Amino acid sequence: MQRAAALVRRGCCPRTLGPWGRSQSSAAAEASAVLKVRPERSRRERILTLESMNPQVKAVEYAGIKKPFTEVIRANIGDAQAMGQQPITFLRQVMALCTYPNLLDSPSFPEDAKKRARRILQACGGNSLGSYSASQGVNCIREDVAAYITRRDGGVPADPDNIYLTTGASDGISTILKILVSGGGKSRTGVMIPIPQYPLYSAVISELDAIQVNYYLDEDNCWALNVNELRRAVQQAKEHCNPKVLCIINPGNPTGQVQSRKCIEDVIHFAWEEKLFLLADEVYQDNVYSSDCKFHSFKKVLYEMGPEYSSNVELASFHSTSKGYMGECGYRGGYMEVINLHPEIKGQLVKLLSVRLCPPVSGQAAMDIVVNPPVPGEESFEQFSREKESVLGNLAKKAKLTEDMFNQVPGIHCNPLMGAMYAFPRIFIPAKAMEAAQAHKMAPDMFYCMKLLEETGICVVPGSGFGQREGTYHFRMTILPPVEKLKTVLQKVKDFHIKFLEEYA
Amino acid sequence: MQRAAALVRRGCCPRTLGPWGRSQSSAAAEASAVLKVRPERSRRERILTLESMNPQVKAVEYAGIKKPFTEVIRANIGDAQAMGQQPITFLRQVMALCTYPNLLDSPSFPEDAKKRARRILQACGGNSLGSYSASQGVNCIREDVAAYITRRDGGVPADPDNIYLTTGASDGISTILKILVSGGGKSRTGVMIPIPQYPLYSAVISELDAIQVNYYLDEDNCWALNVNELRRAVQQAKEHCNPKVLCIINPGNPTGQVQSRKCIEDVIHFAWEEKLFLLADEVYQDNVYSSDCKFHSFKKVLYEMGPEYSSNVELASFHSTSKGYMGECGYRGGYMEVINLHPEIKGQLVKLLSVRLCPPVSGQAAMDIVVNPPVPGEESFEQFSREKESVLGNLAKKAKLTEDMFNQVPGIHCNPLMGAMYAFPRIFIPAKAMEAAQAHKMAPDMFYCMKLLEETGICVVPGSGFGQREGTYHFRMTILPPVEKLKTVLQKVKDFHIKFLEEYA
Repeated sequence: MQRAAALVRRGCCPRTLGPWGRSQSSAAAEASAVLKVRPERSRRERILTLESMNPQVKAVEYAGIKKPFTEVIRANIGDAQAMGQQPITFLRQVMALCTYPNLLDSPSFPEDAKKRARRILQACGGNSLGSYSASQGVNCIREDVAAYITRRDGGVPADPDNIYLTTGASDGISTILKILVSGGGKSRTGVMIPIPQYPLYSAVISELDAIQVNYYLDEDNCWALNVNELRRAVQQAKEHCNPKVLCIINPGNPTGQVQSRKCIEDVIHFAWEEKLFLLADEVYQDNVYSSDCKFHSFKKVLYEMGPEYSSNVELASFHSTSKGYMGECGYRGGYMEVINLHPEIKGQLVKLLSVRLCPPVSGQAAMDIVVNPPVPGEESFEQFSREKESVLGNLAKKAKLTEDMFNQVPGIHCNPLMGAMYAFPRIFIPAKAMEAAQAHKMAPDMFYCMKLLEETGICVVPGSGFGQREGTYHFRMTILPPVEKLKTVLQKVKDFHIKFLEEYA
Repeated sequence: MQRAAALVRRGCCPRTLGPWGRSQSSAAAEASAVLKVRPERSRRERILTLESMNPQVKAVEYAGIKKPFTEVIRANIGDAQAMGQQPITFLRQVMALCTYPNLLDSPSFPEDAKKRARRILQACGGNSLGSYSASQGVNCIREDVAAYITRRDGGVPADPDNIYLTTGASDGISTILKILVSGGGKSRTGVMIPIPQYPLYSAVISELDAIQVNYYLDEDNCWALNVNELRRAVQQAKEHCNPKVLCIINPGNPTGQVQSRKCIEDVIHFAWEEKLFLLADEVYQDNVYSSDCKFHSFKKVLYEMGPEYSSNVELASFHSTSKGYMGECGYRGGYMEVINLHPEIKGQLVKLLSVRLCPPVSGQAAMDIVVNPPVPGEESFEQFSREKESVLGNLAKKAKLTEDMFNQVPGIHCNPLMGAMYAFPRIFIPAKAMEAAQAHKMAPDMFYCMKLLEETGICVVPGSGFGQREGTYHFRMTILPPVEKLKTVLQKVKDFHIKFLEEYA
């Protein structure tokens, strides 16, 4: 296990991971493969080594257990279609029509899909998905995104010129952070992120050599964001850096909370007071399950708070094709809306985006269909609605099921999954298990997840990959497996945990 | 013109660019729009300003004239399909089948396309392009890339484990550079790039705060790479930084030269001698036109030079779906092959790639079709070959045509376009024009290109965007317009240039 963990820490490269998720025989092959490379070191010294490489990149930590476990139950990553969720038919029909326009003559595609495909193609250079788009994204798609935001926010205006299409939300988040980071020593930019967080944030902060400023979500209060905790964090941070950015993830990943309107108002007021640039990660905006809560966009609340806020607070909010009910992760589609950006900075942002030419145009097209779905009266509306509601209805069922099952297990406590796609239960780890983990040079929750994987083939991510209060332990598990499979998974985790408690009693 | 240039320098944001490429009336609208935003400054001071932003990002320069001129002849960017080139039918058929698998039952798609689509889908999570792939890319696609490289290089082995699929070649180049850059002061990493260069390199070097080390290509010798010039550059660089990386673009962008085998051998020996990590940008490997030259991959030459080189020299080479005969820029597909990478660095590289999850899976699929095209005996072979040869045959014609036309113009000298997709002619700018440019606070070649655009609607990129020897002036023009249109373009440039010489005689 020690070797496996070491290899996982080494970046969990599929080819060097060893037995976990593979047969022992292939594991042996792996082992020898790992050994085979050793002699290379006796060769002429490499130019690029751990010593000579970029130290910021070396410092990047990325939640350990990811990709490699293709042959086990991958409850570790929010990849809906990999877990069997079917693509939304309408979305794929439009994409196919855009990809191979000869199909526009085919009677087997609905008119509303053809209409959208024609509209997208007419806005592409040479009427082709194969041309570069403007670096900010295809114009008519940015218009559709703006119209979507206006509808979503009950009429609050959105300007297509403030919309930037991106390569998934990750690209937008790292681009905005890249522009924001500056200064040295005590004036180095501080970026406030929730703990637990989605590890993209800590990774990009490390890459940019910025200062990570943690604020803790309140686990005892369903992972709510408490403004007093923000105050504590920013005050402490000011002693050693210049806090300039506040990142919020709502609905929360990995924590699944959905913030109240009041909480969002408080956060916006705090950002205004402390002169912080707001980053609102809202990729789970369609994934809200509890009947007693609802998604409020930061943009909408900002406007409802009046001109002092709506014309001053700088806000970038992010959305993606990867989550919601469509789960189109592979197309890497996304957008960001950036408001109150200084006019001179807009040019700088577009320049920065131009260096990478443009986001994938197929991903932009996928984003267009997400923000411009069939409407009542259109041919595909009925099927689209059925498919959408079926996905979201199932997720709501599975969210409740997961919460209930976990809370039946002694030594596991799970907050309600109000939104997003994950459970982040707190697990009790006995002293003896802590010692065993230490003996394996592993964090206790990494040790727990490794054992779980070994004994059940279920792959989850230890809480230490997201951050958690000192002395508390968690893991993140997706609720994406089909209901029956999820029940089995939860039962296996339950049995494993009870056995684990006995083993280390 | 002054305002336009200023706006262009500001990053040529489509909405703020002004008259060039738009009607004067809309230009007026632009102007007032530009004025309207001024008052914002009287507002509460922004958090993100030119003063507070990331200085490395501010320092990024990106070849000015790009996207905005959608209504003019966009001879400024290598975007084949935007200039009317038709996609390769087979490629789009496979892509459509992967996008909407119901089409696998359709009799209107050829069997060989279906075979490839099934193979790709079987390797995707949930058999869907909508799932994340491994961060390094879909396994079977990496295998196809390795097989392609082995075929291309006459049997020189390629290991799928050394293949990384990327979001276009740009993504691979910036990722490798990001890992390579380290040190401070005199030990800061120096990155050697050709002058003229493709501006991605200078932009990424600036973003990473690395040291740009220029080596000049020999214009008098058809833009050949001369190793003595590399020696001069590296010796000089050692006085103020640590030269660690050598970037080569072959075939050349913007210069169009194709390097001889001998030259590549010399470069590899130099890299070995000077302990430099080699970056070989080979995205134009299919774009070679002169009968008297041929593409040699750095990988192949490296192996043919024997084990001392093939087992020691660290080389990353890059390819893309965007150029060649397919011109699929919008899918952002690409790969890099990295050899002799230190085993510990592999894990670091995969970790870094994991942060952005994965490259667009549709782009990966496009890459697969490029490296795994129809073969003799397959249903689509004949049509595929016809389409491919027609594109490459036309490009060869247009390369010769462009060279000949330019060289008929007094005050223009153009080296042979041996490869790639661009002419980079040298232009004589009279003293009076220099003064006029200075009066407009513009580089002389920027002034020239602005006038060309104003008077002919032809958009080309000034040589200063790529770098050129002090006191010489050039512009880059693509040869992508259809033959008849290209003839008109060249005639217009000719007439403009003669008029320009008279005006400023």
